[in-house]
Amino acid sequence: MKTGSKRKLRKVTVADIPRVGPGTPAGEWFRRYWLVVGTTKELYDIPQAVRVLGEDLVLFRDNNGAYGLVGQSCPHRGTSLEYGDIEDGGIRCPYHGWLFDTRGQCLEMPGEPKDSKFPQKVRHLAYPVREQGGLLFAYMGPDRANPPPLPNYLALMDRGGQRQVEPVRRADYNWFNFFENSADPVHVCVLHRHAGYGQQSWGDHFFSYTDMPDFEFVEMDYGMKVVMTKPGPRPATEFIDEMSLALPSIVQVGDTEFVHARMDAAALINEGSRCDHWMFVTPNDDDHFMLFTADNYTGPVQNFFARLKAMRDQERPVQEVKPYDKRKHMPYKGNVRQEDIMAQGTQGLLGERSEQLGTSDRGVIKFRKIVLDAIETALQGGAPKGAAPTDPATGITKLDTAVGVREVNG
Amino acid sequence: MKTGSKRKLRKVTVADIPRVGPGTPAGEWFRRYWLVVGTTKELYDIPQAVRVLGEDLVLFRDNNGAYGLVGQSCPHRGTSLEYGDIEDGGIRCPYHGWLFDTRGQCLEMPGEPKDSKFPQKVRHLAYPVREQGGLLFAYMGPDRANPPPLPNYLALMDRGGQRQVEPVRRADYNWFNFFENSADPVHVCVLHRHAGYGQQSWGDHFFSYTDMPDFEFVEMDYGMKVVMTKPGPRPATEFIDEMSLALPSIVQVGDTEFVHARMDAAALINEGSRCDHWMFVTPNDDDHFMLFTADNYTGPVQNFFARLKAMRDQERPVQEVKPYDKRKHMPYKGNVRQEDIMAQGTQGLLGERSEQLGTSDRGVIKFRKIVLDAIETALQGGAPKGAAPTDPATGITKLDTAVGVREVNG
Amino acid sequence: MKTGSKRKLRKVTVADIPRVGPGTPAGEWFRRYWLVVGTTKELYDIPQAVRVLGEDLVLFRDNNGAYGLVGQSCPHRGTSLEYGDIEDGGIRCPYHGWLFDTRGQCLEMPGEPKDSKFPQKVRHLAYPVREQGGLLFAYMGPDRANPPPLPNYLALMDRGGQRQVEPVRRADYNWFNFFENSADPVHVCVLHRHAGYGQQSWGDHFFSYTDMPDFEFVEMDYGMKVVMTKPGPRPATEFIDEMSLALPSIVQVGDTEFVHARMDAAALINEGSRCDHWMFVTPNDDDHFMLFTADNYTGPVQNFFARLKAMRDQERPVQEVKPYDKRKHMPYKGNVRQEDIMAQGTQGLLGERSEQLGTSDRGVIKFRKIVLDAIETALQGGAPKGAAPTDPATGITKLDTAVGVREVNG
Repeated sequence: MKTGSKRKLRKVTVADIPRVGPGTPAGEWFRRYWLVVGTTKELYDIPQAVRVLGEDLVLFRDNNGAYGLVGQSCPHRGTSLEYGDIEDGGIRCPYHGWLFDTRGQCLEMPGEPKDSKFPQKVRHLAYPVREQGGLLFAYMGPDRANPPPLPNYLALMDRGGQRQVEPVRRADYNWFNFFENSADPVHVCVLHRHAGYGQQSWGDHFFSYTDMPDFEFVEMDYGMKVVMTKPGPRPATEFIDEMSLALPSIVQVGDTEFVHARMDAAALINEGSRCDHWMFVTPNDDDHFMLFTADNYTGPVQNFFARLKAMRDQERPVQEVKPYDKRKHMPYKGNVRQEDIMAQGTQGLLGERSEQLGTSDRGVIKFRKIVLDAIETALQGGAPKGAAPTDPATGITKLDTAVGVREVNG
Repeated sequence: MKTGSKRKLRKVTVADIPRVGPGTPAGEWFRRYWLVVGTTKELYDIPQAVRVLGEDLVLFRDNNGAYGLVGQSCPHRGTSLEYGDIEDGGIRCPYHGWLFDTRGQCLEMPGEPKDSKFPQKVRHLAYPVREQGGLLFAYMGPDRANPPPLPNYLALMDRGGQRQVEPVRRADYNWFNFFENSADPVHVCVLHRHAGYGQQSWGDHFFSYTDMPDFEFVEMDYGMKVVMTKPGPRPATEFIDEMSLALPSIVQVGDTEFVHARMDAAALINEGSRCDHWMFVTPNDDDHFMLFTADNYTGPVQNFFARLKAMRDQERPVQEVKPYDKRKHMPYKGNVRQEDIMAQGTQGLLGERSEQLGTSDRGVIKFRKIVLDAIETALQGGAPKGAAPTDPATGITKLDTAVGVREVNG
Repeated sequence: MKTGSKRKLRKVTVADIPRVGPGTPAGEWFRRYWLVVGTTKELYDIPQAVRVLGEDLVLFRDNNGAYGLVGQSCPHRGTSLEYGDIEDGGIRCPYHGWLFDTRGQCLEMPGEPKDSKFPQKVRHLAYPVREQGGLLFAYMGPDRANPPPLPNYLALMDRGGQRQVEPVRRADYNWFNFFENSADPVHVCVLHRHAGYGQQSWGDHFFSYTDMPDFEFVEMDYGMKVVMTKPGPRPATEFIDEMSLALPSIVQVGDTEFVHARMDAAALINEGSRCDHWMFVTPNDDDHFMLFTADNYTGPVQNFFARLKAMRDQERPVQEVKPYDKRKHMPYKGNVRQEDIMAQGTQGLLGERSEQLGTSDRGVIKFRKIVLDAIETALQGGAPKGAAPTDPATGITKLDTAVGVREVNG
C-alpha cells in the first residue's frame, strides 16, 4: 500500500483536490457519489438554477411531483431553462416551447410537424434525482441510467425523535477549505476560543486554548474519524468528542453547541450521540460551495432544535469594530460560523498557497492522503471510499461519532 | 455554387459569425458596410464614447456641424478624447491640446514650435460619417478615403408621411442572437404568445400557438425574406406577413404592433406596407450591441407614432412574480421586447452553445449559410450581399416587406 | 555610454517600465530602494493590508512600537494575517495562533508540543520597515538583513519650520503615467489652464497657454530636473520654476499653489525653495498606486499649510455638467488633481498604447531613457541612480528645486 500510494501521489497531488470541474481528477471522483443539490423546502414551483461541480443546471419538480436536474441551456437553441414553464409533465423552454421530462426526454416541439419523430430523438442532459428526508440528491456519474443505490443516511430517516433540515448556506471559497477544517482540532481551541464555548460547561473545558485535548485520526471505511480525548471526571474515564469525515464531503459532528453548553459531565455518557448532526458539502465550482445540514435528535430534551436555535442566536460576534476598521469580515469573533468563514475564506486554494505543516497538522495530512487514494481509485475504475450501509438488516448508513464520557479499559 | 459553398464552409463556420473584432472573418465582412453608430438627436455638444466592432471610438459633431468618428485614445500620449473639447474646427485633447478635425488630421499642437511641420504629419484614426434621416452612419472599411456610396434607405427619406427615430436601445448579448431571431417565425407563436398579440385581431389570429402560419424563406439580393402565410378571409386569398433581413444587420418588419392590433382584415390589403419599420443592429463587441429603429408611415392614420407608443406602453409584463422568485429577467411575459431579451440574452454565443435544429429551424439554417457566403465573398475581396439601391431612378433602397391580404393566383 | 545604452535598449524597453511585479525588470529595479508603504498617522492598532509591487502584504505596529511588513498569507495554512491579533510582541494568526514578530520569526505555535523546535525553524516573509518624519519606508530588495541606508530626506527632517504629511491618495491607473507627467511642462499650460492658475499672479503669467515658458531637462545624480524659465521682471533676470524627479519615484515640485498664487514677483527670489514639497509614488501593482506627500516650509508665512489647504479647497471644478453628460470623470476642469486623474487615468499602459512624440516631449523621452538605464544597472547588479545624501556632514538628501527670480549671468 505504501509503495502504491507513492506511485499514486506522483500522478494526483493535493493541488488536484480542490478542483472539481468536468474532466478533472477530483471532478471525476466526486461524480461517483450522490450529491445534495437542493432541499424540498427551498424548491418552489419555479425552476431553480444551480451550479454543481462547475456545471450549470436547473433543478425542478414537475407537476406530478417528480424531481429533475437538467442542463440549464436548452439543447435546441440554448435559451436558459431557468425561465422554463413547469407544465404538462415537464419543463418547457420559453423560446420555442420544447418540453422535457425529468429524464431529459423531449416530449413536444410545437413548431415541428405534428407527425415528427424528432422529439423522441432528442434527449437533454439530465441527472437522476432522489429525495431523502427533505434533501434532494443527484447522481452525476457515468452510468446515470443505473446509478448506485442512494445510501439511507441515518439523520435523514424517520425513526422517531426530532428532525430538521437547515436552510442551505452558501460560501464563496473552495469547498475543501471547509471540509478539511474538520480534520484539524487545534483550530477549535484557537479560532473558536472567542465564540460561545466560553460560556459552555463542556466546550469551555474540553477545547481549552491553554490545555488542548489529545487527538488521534483513525482511517475508516467511510473516510476518517477525529477522536479527541481528555482525562475524565473519575478515574478510569475520559471525555471524548469525535468528528467523522465521510467521502466525498460529509461531516458528522458528535456534538452540537447544545450538548457542549448544557450538559453536566455526569449526564453526558453517550448523550452526544443522540444528536446526528450531518453536514453535506456540495461544490458549485472551485470557488463556491453549498452546505446542507440535517439533524436528527433522539434524546429527551423537548423542542431541541428551537433551543439550539436560541443558543445560536445568542452567539453573535462580540467584537468591537472601531470606526477606522474597514476589514471585510469584521466583526467575526464570537460566532463560530463567521470565524470559520474568515479563516477558510482567506486561505486561497490548496495547492496554490504555500504551507508549512507541523505535527498538529497530521490530521489534514492524513486526510488528504485518504482523499487522494479515493481519487486514484475512482480514476482507475474502482469504488472509492464513502459512507456505505453499516447495518445490513436495515440498510442504514450510520456514522458513529461519540461525545461524552467513557470508561477507559486498562 | 454548391461546390464552392461547401469549400467555403470548411473555412468559415457558424462559430465565426458572432465575432466581429478587428481581423476576425465576420469583423472584416462587417467593415464592408456603412453602420449606424449614433443618432443626431442623442449626440450632444460633447464627445460621445462609442465602441463599434470591438474598437473604442469617439463620435462628435464639430462646431461647423460636421460629424467625426475618431479613435478614443489620443495618438500623442493616449488620453481619452471622450474628454476632448469641441472647438476650433475639431476636437482638442485636454492633455496637451492637440486638435484634430473630423478626418483625423491634426491641426494644432500648442506645445510644439510655431513653425513645426509635425501637426500636418499626424493623422489620427478617423472613419467617415454621414447623416441620413437622423441616423449617423460610419464606414470602417479598407478604403476610407473612397467609401462605397451610402444607400438611400427608404425609411430615412423625407417623402411625406410621418417619420420617427426611436432612442437607441442597448443590449448585453451577442448581436447575432438578436438578428437571426427574425429568421425564426416559430418563436413569435411561442415566446410572444404571452404578449399583446392576445388582444390583437390580426396578430392573435395569425401567430397562433396551436395553428401556426406556414412559412418559407426566400434568398434575396439583400439577404433573406421570411414569408408567413395563412388561408385568407375569402377564397383565393391569403393573409401574408413578411420580415426582411438585409445584410449585414438590418431587419425590416412588415408590420408594427399597431397594424397587427387594429386593422380589420378587409382593410388590410397592403396596409402593412405603409409603415416602413427598419431596425439597424450595430455590434459594440461580441457581447453588446446597439439597436437603432427608424420608421416611416405613409398611411392615413393621424398621429401614428403617438398611437403606436400608447399601445406599447400598455404592453407591460403581466406576469405575477412570487416573493421567492429572484430570477434576473422576471417579469418578462407580456412584453415582446423583454421576452426577446430573456430568450436571446441567455442563449450564449453561437458556436459555443450546442444546438439541435429541426425542420422549423430551416430559416436560421438558411440564413446562416447566406451570411457565411457573404463573409467568404468579403474575405475574397468581392462585394458581399447587402441592401443595394432598388430604384435606379431615385437611387432609393426599399425592402418590400408585405403585411396584409393578397389574392392567390392558381 | 551611447553604445552601451543602445545595447541595453534592445533588452529593456519602455514597455517594461510600468510593470513592477516580482521578477519583472522594473520590479527588480524598484526593489533596490526604500519605498513608502504607509504613514504613522493612518496606521491604527489593527493590521493594514497593503499591496506593494504586486505583493499582498500586511503592515502593522507591534505592541512594542516596532513596525512590521509581512506576507499577507500565513505560512502555515494561508489564512490572511490582515485579521491577525497584534499582541505578545508580534502578530498572531487567528486560525491556529501562530505568532510572528516584525522580522517574520515565528515565536509561538499553540497547537504544537510545548518543547517543539518547529517555531524557530519557521520564518515568514518580512520586509524591514523604518519610520521617518511620519512616513513608513520598507525595503523589499535582495539583502533584507542588510538593507542599504535609508536616505535622510530633507522634507522629513525636523529642522524647524512647519511640516505636514498629507493623507495618502490612491489612484487606479499605472504609477508611471503619474510620475512621467512631471517631466512634461506643456501639460501644465494646457491641461491646467482651467485650474486655479487663472487667479494666480505668478502661475497665470508663467504657465501661459499662449506664451509657454522655455524648458530644458537636466540629467542629475538622482534622476532628472525640469527647468522652466521666462524673461524676468528686470533686465538680466529670469523667472525660474523647477521640478525634480528622483528615482525610483519621488517628485519634488519647487512651488506649491500657495507660492504661485500669492507672491509678487519682487518678493519671489528663492521664496519657492522655502517649501520642500515631496511626493513619493508607490505602485500597488501595475494598475494602482499610492501617493504620499510630505512638506516642510521654512518661510515666514504663519499657518502655511492651513492657508494652502484653504486655497486648495477653493479650487473646485468649475465646469458646468449638463444633464446628458454622464462621462465618468466629470467635472474635472478647475482642479489640478482631478485634471491629472482624468488625463493620466485614461492613458492606458505605456508600451500598450501607441504614441507619436514631438519635440515638446523631449522631457519624457529623456526621462524614460534615464529610467531604462537605471533598470539596466539594477539588473546587472549595480547601484542605480537615486536620491543619495547630498550633504556629507549631515547625511541629508536635498533636492534643490528652485522657484523664483534669478539673475542671469552673461
